[in-house]
Amino acid sequence: MINKLAEKIQKTHAPIVAGLDPMMNYIPEHIQRKAFEEYGETLEGAAEAIWQFNKEIVDCIYDLIPAVKPQIAMYEQFGIPGLQAFQKTVDYCHKKDLIVIGDIKRGDIGSTSAAYAAGHIGSVKVGSKTYHPFGEDFITVNPYLGTDGVKPFVDVCREEKKGLFILVKTSNPSSGEFQDKIVDGRPLYELVGEKAAQWGADCMGENYSYVGAVVGATYPEVGKILRRIMPKSFILVPGYGAQGGTGADLVHFFHEDGLGAIVNSSRGIIAAYQQEAYADFGAEHFGEASRAAVLAMKEDIDNALQAAK
Amino acid sequence: MINKLAEKIQKTHAPIVAGLDPMMNYIPEHIQRKAFEEYGETLEGAAEAIWQFNKEIVDCIYDLIPAVKPQIAMYEQFGIPGLQAFQKTVDYCHKKDLIVIGDIKRGDIGSTSAAYAAGHIGSVKVGSKTYHPFGEDFITVNPYLGTDGVKPFVDVCREEKKGLFILVKTSNPSSGEFQDKIVDGRPLYELVGEKAAQWGADCMGENYSYVGAVVGATYPEVGKILRRIMPKSFILVPGYGAQGGTGADLVHFFHEDGLGAIVNSSRGIIAAYQQEAYADFGAEHFGEASRAAVLAMKEDIDNALQAAK
Repeated sequence: MINKLAEKIQKTHAPIVAGLDPMMNYIPEHIQRKAFEEYGETLEGAAEAIWQFNKEIVDCIYDLIPAVKPQIAMYEQFGIPGLQAFQKTVDYCHKKDLIVIGDIKRGDIGSTSAAYAAGHIGSVKVGSKTYHPFGEDFITVNPYLGTDGVKPFVDVCREEKKGLFILVKTSNPSSGEFQDKIVDGRPLYELVGEKAAQWGADCMGENYSYVGAVVGATYPEVGKILRRIMPKSFILVPGYGAQGGTGADLVHFFHEDGLGAIVNSSRGIIAAYQQEAYADFGAEHFGEASRAAVLAMKEDIDNALQAAK
Repeated sequence: MINKLAEKIQKTHAPIVAGLDPMMNYIPEHIQRKAFEEYGETLEGAAEAIWQFNKEIVDCIYDLIPAVKPQIAMYEQFGIPGLQAFQKTVDYCHKKDLIVIGDIKRGDIGSTSAAYAAGHIGSVKVGSKTYHPFGEDFITVNPYLGTDGVKPFVDVCREEKKGLFILVKTSNPSSGEFQDKIVDGRPLYELVGEKAAQWGADCMGENYSYVGAVVGATYPEVGKILRRIMPKSFILVPGYGAQGGTGADLVHFFHEDGLGAIVNSSRGIIAAYQQEAYADFGAEHFGEASRAAVLAMKEDIDNALQAAK
């Protein structure tokens, strides 16, 4: 799957992942109204609104980008119906040949991590039958429990040719509270980055490991260091746009061939129609606004990478 | 809810939580067969088997203990049907007046943590209606992202009088890989413990904070230190029984009044019938085996606490 990701980035010239993190206040009123007419103001109604919103955005941008990243929390908050919308979104994106990165940030003791891995990127046995329940291609993993909490995810990746992004340095303001603490003479995130590189060392695709890392765009200097520590890890970079990261901040996350990183934008793409720059599209044409936002992001990153050459 | 937990522990004389973590190989063949006859060897069939298994165990032990702790991964691995079994289990335990600790170990950047908090211990708005989707009483939270990733959970706790257990020192063998690293002259878990105490300081029940901590039974010396660092935090103690912790290991997690900690056992209770000590019950009477295991665990902890006096 890591090979497919690299190929698709080269084909689309877009190291971009669209974060499908639908907050209710991003969803245009006409979509909400229609969903509530059919299902009432219920969890099912919310889930239907999310699904219709996602579907229209995906229809408008699927040919431009290699991957999407649904944040499962935004679905899980609406309970079972919300998670059904997550599942429908994953399946639909696969039909559109998009790579799906499930942003689930799971991580637990070994036997529990094994269950999460089975459900999201692997398979479960029921009697004599085998199922692949959620079926994402990549997932994000929290490393706080150490190697035996991460290993079961890596094992499933190896078997199923799926991938991981390990949280190394997150994009949020207080990420440094623990992640930046100095241990053995260097920040904790460097130690976690080294471990991520080790976990992925025997799990290699053509040029990159199945085991990647999350490093926030909001910390470009950290990105430079981690790029060196984890040369074979693809870096998933959140924090572009709404969280403050710019194209120029991103150059250090990439290798010279323009690969090695994929940049996420969520609100900046899916709620583009609410921004002044795309207001002319109007709420009715929110999908086209998203398409314009993807094209602008592509140009911004491309310019930054060209300027850095 | 923290007051209710303390009261129920005093009433039952059992600082015990039963971990409802149903692996398929714990579920007796007659339960699986019946579920598969009705739903086929499908995810729905697996979910039905889990639900029937849980129900019988809960029916056999609900009067002995204050709380249960379903590990959501064991349900999530069976996709949507599995999560429906999780939801049914939560609802049924509430009917039996059990406190439900959702072992979900979520944690993300602020806006995402807010969504998890809403879905699991809080509420969501859909149009003019409000829903409490999963409706657990407590959840476990991963602190790796720092204060702004934990704060939204604390805020919801304050509003809804619900509770948290922050992962401070986990029970697994490699928990020390990051958690034990020395930062500013002391292990990282001490720093996380201090933060957990701070996060809970303005969120107090009668004697304990709404914000508790997870500290593994497998590290009793660490428990002693953390008990001191977080005097107002209830400690959720996994790792008893199957993972190696004994009654004697537990005494340091408690205050002298016998409160302040609650000990989890999962396999030791729910798969008791598979142990030699309870084999006489047979697979048909697995629920009664679980009841016997709870009584034995209660005695073991009680003896250890008495001996320590």
